[in-house]
Amino acid sequence: MNPAELDQLVSQIGEEILARLSAKKLAGAEGLGIANTVCPGCTQRCAQTCEAKTKKIIACGADRISASEKLTRIAPEIASLIDHTILKPDATADEVSKVCTEARKYSFASVCINPFWVPFVAKLLKGSPVKVCTVIGFPLGANTTDIKVTETENAVLCGAEEVDMVINVGALKSGDYEFVERDIRCVAQAAHRGGAILKVIIETALLDDQQKAMACTLAKLAGADFVKTSTGFAKSGATAADIALMRSIVGPGMGVKASGGIRSLEDVKIMEAAGASRIGASASVKIMEAAGGGTIANAAKQDGY
Amino acid sequence: MNPAELDQLVSQIGEEILARLSAKKLAGAEGLGIANTVCPGCTQRCAQTCEAKTKKIIACGADRISASEKLTRIAPEIASLIDHTILKPDATADEVSKVCTEARKYSFASVCINPFWVPFVAKLLKGSPVKVCTVIGFPLGANTTDIKVTETENAVLCGAEEVDMVINVGALKSGDYEFVERDIRCVAQAAHRGGAILKVIIETALLDDQQKAMACTLAKLAGADFVKTSTGFAKSGATAADIALMRSIVGPGMGVKASGGIRSLEDVKIMEAAGASRIGASASVKIMEAAGGGTIANAAKQDGY
Repeated sequence: MNPAELDQLVSQIGEEILARLSAKKLAGAEGLGIANTVCPGCTQRCAQTCEAKTKKIIACGADRISASEKLTRIAPEIASLIDHTILKPDATADEVSKVCTEARKYSFASVCINPFWVPFVAKLLKGSPVKVCTVIGFPLGANTTDIKVTETENAVLCGAEEVDMVINVGALKSGDYEFVERDIRCVAQAAHRGGAILKVIIETALLDDQQKAMACTLAKLAGADFVKTSTGFAKSGATAADIALMRSIVGPGMGVKASGGIRSLEDVKIMEAAGASRIGASASVKIMEAAGGGTIANAAKQDGY
Repeated sequence: MNPAELDQLVSQIGEEILARLSAKKLAGAEGLGIANTVCPGCTQRCAQTCEAKTKKIIACGADRISASEKLTRIAPEIASLIDHTILKPDATADEVSKVCTEARKYSFASVCINPFWVPFVAKLLKGSPVKVCTVIGFPLGANTTDIKVTETENAVLCGAEEVDMVINVGALKSGDYEFVERDIRCVAQAAHRGGAILKVIIETALLDDQQKAMACTLAKLAGADFVKTSTGFAKSGATAADIALMRSIVGPGMGVKASGGIRSLEDVKIMEAAGASRIGASASVKIMEAAGGGTIANAAKQDGY
């Protein structure tokens, strides 16, 4: 696709997104900007925690599994959705090691760490079904494409099976969609060459609804496997409204990962009901304890999407 | 220096630092942990803004220029201390361009941007005395050394004259001083090969006093040109107490950059009085207006250290 064709496509998609957003708002469903409205279920602004609001949001989209089905998942299935995450800059070897032990115990989908820790974690998880996940251009996304690609290649060589990259938010907001798409595509190709999958962090806290939709569209066009809400380092994280929007844009064929501020089993259920197929969390053990999950070594694992 | 020699040196330095910290506390100067104490000047916890406290801190060290001399600097001299900074991930081309125009107008020391913007800023600052400064492994520092080195080499090739790298805080806290020193040394060599200088961000908010002192010592051993307090993305930024501690460790021959939360002329004066030779700020224009600085094109510029 040449730049002119991409521009035209992006323009068409933008119009379609605006039309969909307007239609949903007109239909009285409060639409996808619902995160900023007072919730009828509990009279508070509570996009992350209110199940009544989540169900209302879900009603806006036809391509999501019903809340009731999702809310009855058993503990091993919940564990298989979770990227057990430790991304704080001052994480020590002992702390990272503990996270790996916990991930083996509960059979989480992956352990998500900064690139420095990839070889260490790959060694600790060897022989387990838990995947090694790392982050690229994290958390600002304002590195060059060359660096994102090299960081991806190195991480995959060292054992990363999943990479979560941050888009260039500044370029997106400057309207340089061609660059943003190419940036993602180059990293997707590097990940796929090494047999890894790519999740694309759009950092929802910094975007309006149209920009979120555009970022998801570009990630899909560029061949990414997932879109993901947040780095966990911005002013806010995942909301059910954003998950619903992202799912409506990428359709059922891609993964949607909710991350940032997910601290309870209730949060997980709400995000899943809204359309998330993967959850990023550091409170994963607390979540599993609430789900009644003990040691689930070698439990059946699914990819989460 | 081999690992055993480094370990021995680090151990000796650690003992010396502890001795100095204890001596200062015993001498009733409240020492370098003063940031956490109530200030006698204004009865508040105000390490960043209280001049009385700063002077007390300065009295702890003999190697700093007196506050009175520093506090009477004229506007162009203040401008020459400031790295005019825009590091938010969603900065647009228009915003970065505006920062460059402001930097030319006031003759700031540099414009500090994320790596993606280096070629753009290098073009906009061409022919001016304002340097191009970028950040490496930013803001978490938990990338591999290879990536930090490659990012530095690429940035320098694209026009960066100063690079501000983040140390591997997790490795430091894990006690792997040999790795931390080598990480810095490799980046310093890459920067110096390209004619750039290296500032080492130790992220004071995540360290205790002994760790701060250790990080400064390792940066000095590794051949860095500056130590710098903060990324601006942690829970807190520069304090006068930290600047005083850092200056006391690196001595007069290295630069000390205060960054994170510096929003007023008063803040600049306090940091400078405490021992800072460079200031990172995004509120630089407001600071210059308070200093009475108008257009100071082509004003005499000094390196700030």
